[in-house]
Amino acid sequence: MHIAILTFNGFNELDSLIALGILCRVRKPDWRVTLACPTPTVTSMNGVTVHAQASLAESCAADAIIIGSGIETRAIANNAEMMRQLRFDPSRQLIGAQCSGTLLLAKLGLLGATPACTDLITKPWVQDAGVEVLNQPFYADGNIATAGGCLASQYLAAWILARTEGEEAARAALYYVAPVGEKEAYVTRAMQNIAPYLPQNHLDARTS
Amino acid sequence: MHIAILTFNGFNELDSLIALGILCRVRKPDWRVTLACPTPTVTSMNGVTVHAQASLAESCAADAIIIGSGIETRAIANNAEMMRQLRFDPSRQLIGAQCSGTLLLAKLGLLGATPACTDLITKPWVQDAGVEVLNQPFYADGNIATAGGCLASQYLAAWILARTEGEEAARAALYYVAPVGEKEAYVTRAMQNIAPYLPQNHLDARTS
Repeated sequence: MHIAILTFNGFNELDSLIALGILCRVRKPDWRVTLACPTPTVTSMNGVTVHAQASLAESCAADAIIIGSGIETRAIANNAEMMRQLRFDPSRQLIGAQCSGTLLLAKLGLLGATPACTDLITKPWVQDAGVEVLNQPFYADGNIATAGGCLASQYLAAWILARTEGEEAARAALYYVAPVGEKEAYVTRAMQNIAPYLPQNHLDARTS
Repeated sequence: MHIAILTFNGFNELDSLIALGILCRVRKPDWRVTLACPTPTVTSMNGVTVHAQASLAESCAADAIIIGSGIETRAIANNAEMMRQLRFDPSRQLIGAQCSGTLLLAKLGLLGATPACTDLITKPWVQDAGVEVLNQPFYADGNIATAGGCLASQYLAAWILARTEGEEAARAALYYVAPVGEKEAYVTRAMQNIAPYLPQNHLDARTS
């Protein structure tokens, strides 16, 4: 299982790394979560430089993808060469997008008539791309999910865990990262946000 | 204003980078938030390599410090050479510790008889260091604060913002990062967590 978190220059640290930390709570030999980047290093919107753990080409072959967010997303959406490298297929991959990542999902033509979540800054650009933007933190339709607001990245990660490893794995990971004294409330709210979008049989649903 | 987030090998991505992202919501020319590391690069508990933005020596001169968390904290606490480099002074600095960072705070002798927050795994080690561990996400006494559970790092960051820039700056930063559709609830809960520990006059209180 390879889950690639697309992370570009100008990336939002919360959006890429909250999801990574939560997804890495699964400790299995074949479980791999990576920052997938267009270059060997990328630097965040606040000057944090991280090393790529996978290439964009590897992300195209991943089992699940999260398209991260950042301050250069509009430039990426207009960069034909970059966009050509993002070849995702919801018939064989879980595809999530966080905040401005939703704009890339729309521009890749993967949203169709599906409504989506994004952050308040990106919202008008996603609407300009012809997508209905919801006033909620998380939405999924089949194998495509979107989240809005940095801390909603916990819901995107939980959805991927629920779809791949089951709801208990999602609950356990959320419980670990939640604030002490607020763990039950955090897990309950997160599961309420993703539960409406989980098919009853997770493993079968991945390839439906 | 320099806020240094101590980040060691084996660091927890959420603990260092949620705080960094929230603190960087303040856009002022003299506002600097850095990952302060013992080496030019450090690699997280899940294999993410980041570049240091400040040295440990620079962190000792910072206006505020967050001691991040990670899987190597006990080794660091037993590394006399490393510990000698951590010379912090709550009479002139705001000092926060996240999860296992609380163990370093205790070992540095900065907690005294003050109770503290930490994560559930670190809890027995902090208790062994003679510190009462609270079942809550955030606690502060004067210029020293502690938080437990990765996502409680938002409270630590909000406390530093409230203490340096005021409560409105804290609210604005929290609002930005909170999930869409849950922003009011997130801000309210965070401010409820930190409000009991805020002196009425923030700026005067910093040097009290």
